[in-house]
Amino acid sequence: MQRKIEVCLTPALLDLYAIEESIVVVIDILRATSSIVYGIDNGAEAIIPVAQVEDCLSYKDHGYLLAAERNGEVVEGYDFGNSPFSYTSEKVAGKTVVLTTTNGTKALHLARERAAQVVIGAFLNLDSLCNWLKDQDKNVLLLCAGWKDQFNLEDTLFAGAVVNRLRASFVHFDDSSVASEDLYVLARQDLRAYLSKSSHSHRLAALNIEQDVQFCLQLNVCKAIPVLKGERLLAL
Amino acid sequence: MQRKIEVCLTPALLDLYAIEESIVVVIDILRATSSIVYGIDNGAEAIIPVAQVEDCLSYKDHGYLLAAERNGEVVEGYDFGNSPFSYTSEKVAGKTVVLTTTNGTKALHLARERAAQVVIGAFLNLDSLCNWLKDQDKNVLLLCAGWKDQFNLEDTLFAGAVVNRLRASFVHFDDSSVASEDLYVLARQDLRAYLSKSSHSHRLAALNIEQDVQFCLQLNVCKAIPVLKGERLLAL
Repeated sequence: MQRKIEVCLTPALLDLYAIEESIVVVIDILRATSSIVYGIDNGAEAIIPVAQVEDCLSYKDHGYLLAAERNGEVVEGYDFGNSPFSYTSEKVAGKTVVLTTTNGTKALHLARERAAQVVIGAFLNLDSLCNWLKDQDKNVLLLCAGWKDQFNLEDTLFAGAVVNRLRASFVHFDDSSVASEDLYVLARQDLRAYLSKSSHSHRLAALNIEQDVQFCLQLNVCKAIPVLKGERLLAL
Repeated sequence: MQRKIEVCLTPALLDLYAIEESIVVVIDILRATSSIVYGIDNGAEAIIPVAQVEDCLSYKDHGYLLAAERNGEVVEGYDFGNSPFSYTSEKVAGKTVVLTTTNGTKALHLARERAAQVVIGAFLNLDSLCNWLKDQDKNVLLLCAGWKDQFNLEDTLFAGAVVNRLRASFVHFDDSSVASEDLYVLARQDLRAYLSKSSHSHRLAALNIEQDVQFCLQLNVCKAIPVLKGERLLAL
C-alpha cells in the first residue's frame, strides 16, 4: 500500500477528507491532547472527552474526576481544567477523568464519526506515536484542533513533526503536510521561541500558563498512545 | 489605527473572519488571479468573473470574450481558458472578458458578499498591490482560493509575500500570517523549485502548463490592481 499522510489544519475542513479507512491523530497541543497523553501515561484508567461543560456534570456522582476548561481557565466547581500538571500519577492513576475543552473535544467528536481509528498526539508522545503509525498499514490524517476553527501554529508544528518522522514510510503528502513539515523544521531548534510569534501565544501569556506551555513542548516524555474506544480514551 | 493583517487559507474558512471593514485580496495564483492581473494590465476594459460555465454563455451575444476552465482545461467552444498567455494586449485590450474558473471565482463571490472592498493579487502585481495596501487605512484579509476548499502552497506563498512586505505597516498578525510569511521566506529564492514539492504541482504538470506556472511566478511584471465594482473587475 502506498500510504498517504494529510494534515487537516482546522476541524472546519475535516469534511473535505475521506477518513473512513484512515487513522486520525487529534492534536490540541495547548493543552488538551498534551494533558490526555500525560494522564494516560500516568495511569489514568480512562479519559472521557465531552463537548459541553454541562455534559461533565452528569458524570459527577460516578466517582469520576471532572475537568472543565473554557477559554483557557478552569470552570468553577470542577476538579481541574486541562493543565497537564493536573494529570500527575498522584491525581489520576486508576481514575477516570471526564474532560471538556474548547477545541480538542470538538475535534475528537468530529473525527470519531467517520474515522477508522482515532488516537491522540502531542509532543510528549511524538516518537512513540510515530513508531506505531509506521507499523500500521493505513493512511494517516493529522487533525489540528486549532483555535475556534482557525489555524494555529502549535498544532501545525506538531503535525509537521509527525510528517517529518514518517516521511520515509509514506508516499503521498498533501500541501498542508509539506507546509507543516517545513514550519516544524524551521521551528524545531526552539519551539517556544518560534511560538512567541503566535497570536495564540499572547493569549496564553495573558492566562499565565507559561509553565504549561513549556511542559507541552517537551518531546518524548511519555510512551502512552491514547486511543478512542467508544466514548473513552484508553491506553492503546 | 493599529491595522491587522490576516490570511484565510481557504474559502471554506472565510465565515470565521469579520471583513465588513476590510480590504480582501483574492489570490488564485495558478492561474485565475494571475491572468486577471495580466489582462487588466494589458488594457482589458473589464473582466467579469462568473461561477458556472453556463453563466458565461448568457454573455455570448454581447461581444464579450468568453473564458472558461474546469479542472485546468479550456472548456470546448470558449474563446480561451485561464492561461495568462490568453490575456495579452493583442487579445484583450479594450475588450470585456467573462471568466469562470474552478476556485478563483468562488473565492471572489464569497468575498464580495461582505467585504468593504475586493481586489486581486498575484505575484505579477505584488509590489504595486502592497504599496497601495500600505496607504489605505484598513485591515487586510488575504484570501487564498486554494484547491477545492483545501489549502494550497502557491496561494499561501503569495499571501506570505504580501505579509512580508506589509510587516512594518501593520501591528496585528494572525497565526496563518506568521506561517505564510515564514514559508514565503523559505521559498522565495526559487519559488518554482519550492512548488515542485506540492501535490498541486504534480496535477499541473499533468496538464502541461509549465510555461504558465513559470509566468505566474514572476514578480512585478504588472502595475494594475484589479478591483471589483459590482460584478466587474476593473483597473483601480
